[in-house]
Amino acid sequence: MDFKKIDEQDLVFFRSVVGEEFVLTTPEGLAKYAKDETEDLRFPPEVVLKPANTDEISRIMRYCNERNIPVSPRAAGTGLSANSLCIYGGVMLTIERLNKIINIDEQNLQVTTEPGVITEQLQNAVKEKGLYYPPDPSSRGSSFIGGNVACNSGGPRAVKYGVVKDFVLNLEVVLANGDVIWTGANVLKNSTGYNFTQLFVGSEGTLGIVTRIVLKLVPHPQYTLVMLAPFPSMEQAAAAVAATFQAGIVPSCMEFMEREAIDWVCRWLGDVTIPIADDVRANLLIELDGNDLDVLYKESEQLYEVLTRFDCGEILFADSDAQKADLWRMRRNVANAVKTTAVTIEEDTVVPRYRLPELLTHIKAVGRKYNFRSVCYGHAGDGNVHVRIIKDELTDDQWKNEVPKGVREIFEKVVELGGTISGEHGIGWVQRRYMDVKFPAMQLDLMRGVKAVFDPKGILNPGKIF
Amino acid sequence: MDFKKIDEQDLVFFRSVVGEEFVLTTPEGLAKYAKDETEDLRFPPEVVLKPANTDEISRIMRYCNERNIPVSPRAAGTGLSANSLCIYGGVMLTIERLNKIINIDEQNLQVTTEPGVITEQLQNAVKEKGLYYPPDPSSRGSSFIGGNVACNSGGPRAVKYGVVKDFVLNLEVVLANGDVIWTGANVLKNSTGYNFTQLFVGSEGTLGIVTRIVLKLVPHPQYTLVMLAPFPSMEQAAAAVAATFQAGIVPSCMEFMEREAIDWVCRWLGDVTIPIADDVRANLLIELDGNDLDVLYKESEQLYEVLTRFDCGEILFADSDAQKADLWRMRRNVANAVKTTAVTIEEDTVVPRYRLPELLTHIKAVGRKYNFRSVCYGHAGDGNVHVRIIKDELTDDQWKNEVPKGVREIFEKVVELGGTISGEHGIGWVQRRYMDVKFPAMQLDLMRGVKAVFDPKGILNPGKIF
Repeated sequence: MDFKKIDEQDLVFFRSVVGEEFVLTTPEGLAKYAKDETEDLRFPPEVVLKPANTDEISRIMRYCNERNIPVSPRAAGTGLSANSLCIYGGVMLTIERLNKIINIDEQNLQVTTEPGVITEQLQNAVKEKGLYYPPDPSSRGSSFIGGNVACNSGGPRAVKYGVVKDFVLNLEVVLANGDVIWTGANVLKNSTGYNFTQLFVGSEGTLGIVTRIVLKLVPHPQYTLVMLAPFPSMEQAAAAVAATFQAGIVPSCMEFMEREAIDWVCRWLGDVTIPIADDVRANLLIELDGNDLDVLYKESEQLYEVLTRFDCGEILFADSDAQKADLWRMRRNVANAVKTTAVTIEEDTVVPRYRLPELLTHIKAVGRKYNFRSVCYGHAGDGNVHVRIIKDELTDDQWKNEVPKGVREIFEKVVELGGTISGEHGIGWVQRRYMDVKFPAMQLDLMRGVKAVFDPKGILNPGKIF
Repeated sequence: MDFKKIDEQDLVFFRSVVGEEFVLTTPEGLAKYAKDETEDLRFPPEVVLKPANTDEISRIMRYCNERNIPVSPRAAGTGLSANSLCIYGGVMLTIERLNKIINIDEQNLQVTTEPGVITEQLQNAVKEKGLYYPPDPSSRGSSFIGGNVACNSGGPRAVKYGVVKDFVLNLEVVLANGDVIWTGANVLKNSTGYNFTQLFVGSEGTLGIVTRIVLKLVPHPQYTLVMLAPFPSMEQAAAAVAATFQAGIVPSCMEFMEREAIDWVCRWLGDVTIPIADDVRANLLIELDGNDLDVLYKESEQLYEVLTRFDCGEILFADSDAQKADLWRMRRNVANAVKTTAVTIEEDTVVPRYRLPELLTHIKAVGRKYNFRSVCYGHAGDGNVHVRIIKDELTDDQWKNEVPKGVREIFEKVVELGGTISGEHGIGWVQRRYMDVKFPAMQLDLMRGVKAVFDPKGILNPGKIF
């Protein structure tokens, strides 16, 4: 792509808009923003801008659009698909200073927030008012709500409450040319023209820069029960998931960890006191939530009956908040454990939940074919399984040329099973090459057509999705 | 717009595709498809086609696109915004023969259906398997699921379960040029490029023709409690709605009827045995659902405490299925009662629910200013209130020129309150003139741009939304 390089005159303008201290050009400053949580990729921007508000972003965009300077918006940099890296250089526009919760509306059960608020802090703030924003990606302690919107994040609680898209009512967006729109309205029902709100959710900063977010909230449930259920095989654990929902039980979380995932995280954390028997091949971490403990106990009995049909071993019921936290710490750290001790890539497969056993069997078969190990874990309740593929002793050539063939075969199976190639991480830069597995060229052209409506010059987050 | 008129050669082609008996050209045939449920509008198509499947629709579209013949898709014709009328003549393409439920997937809690299935029949079919598809517009006994998708319908149960968009996972769509795509995947989480599924939901047949629909289902709740709560003022009833949710109670329905709505429907039905005291100015029809009767009773006690804070009178608890049905019959027939005994138009306002009292006060003030009576009712739990404006003694000139000014003032207030001009009816043809109240011209141009990506010649349902 033919973009303009940033020169001193551009920097003078940027400094005049955001202030000298919020324009980074030093090698250290640029290096910090050259990477995210995706593998080991490095794409330094030419400049990092830290605007404070919608107006500053609008002025930056108008300027860059006129001059054909690429702009990649960045939230917390926790993306797993290189969603925000500056592949073509240009401006890295970080929203980290748009970090205020503007209004928690207790009367309408909504929150209006800037995009640079850490998701967990947003959840805590609304919880203080008895309200609940359920979507909680594993990164919630560090990722921004704006990044969650850009990638349509999910997390464990999606299985009962839905993903980010199900909570976004309205977005303020700065378009490529600097124009500012509100995509929708602050209401629960909306049939007023095309649903731009939902078009922007998950568009990974390629259509505009989200500057304000209105989210629906629900009353916070008062109680949770958390339990860990061990199974003698991955397939039985996965089959138990579908059977649970068929029985009319809707857990607030139903997470899957194969044996290897558990071993890895226990080794890495070093202080996990939860006993895992030798013959356990997979675990389900299950949470029930509600406002009535008696009802929850009754539900957990029903659940027990379902799980035992699939040879579930002795279920560990967390008997304290500390033990609940310990179980969740174990689950949330699987990815960290694997990726900080090995060279890996992660795939974000999702299928209808009943098809999970087939998918898992296939993943392992592909691994044998291409000689790679994988650690499977994730949100089994939604059929969303993360596959962390480990380089181990593979040569660089095998890693670069053979493993992608295996990934492609996994994705072909995913699509055949009615699923898709990303459940919650987005496509970004690294998964683009697999988009043809899911969509015919004609459909990708339609997506490019939509992109061109909002960003005719293609300056917004270039190199992503397509 | 400059469309080609249909000639004998076109009819020969159409007959070759769908069969002679499914091509209507008689005046009676065309007259039947010239109207829907919107006011008294008549727009006869040049021809009515009744294709049987995706392939026939694809061939029709390819032919019409090449020749610049407009095509308006039609579901059951229950639209309230002239969403499907053939404003520019051309082809009325009815999906009534695509009326099969293809697969109820009990393992993944999904249903795949053709769009011409009556919504209530779909609900009944999945209920037989213990599953629930909650969105239930008042027209559910006659409207098609495809029309519900086209308008992103809501209905009473949206307040707890969400609207149509929250249940649509994937759509098969025939595009203007005859190409066929699947918009998404059959999964609960999806971050794979732009969300075309959500773009098509609510697009009123202007972007493509939906030919298959994959819907998420949930376990069917076992019990409901239904109650009618009377209030001494509209404002108190509306305020009680917001307070209910603030108290952490999420009813499955929370419907509003002002006194005049109740009187009208009781007169019209003639056999309503539910007593309504003289001093009642508004009613809330409330439903709680769940799987545990004890819990529901406990919730209804909490609810009682909330409602009495707003001077609620004696609450009628339905003590039998027959009485529940009677209460619902009353609510569902308000629109029918008013429109079959008077000349009316209906507006589909929606605001954040706490703002309802302000909106209702404003609507009545506007009515006094422009000398019209209105009957207000609807889905108060979502802040979605239908305003049926009655012609009464107004002159045709007043009706045509003055009342729209009042409607505009109502919509201006709606937008000021954070709401929008259609919650579930769509924009269609009759509400286009108010779109500028909600959206700046630049944003409407973006919508037109998206339309042009999918339908460059503008042959699909022309004259709608814009």
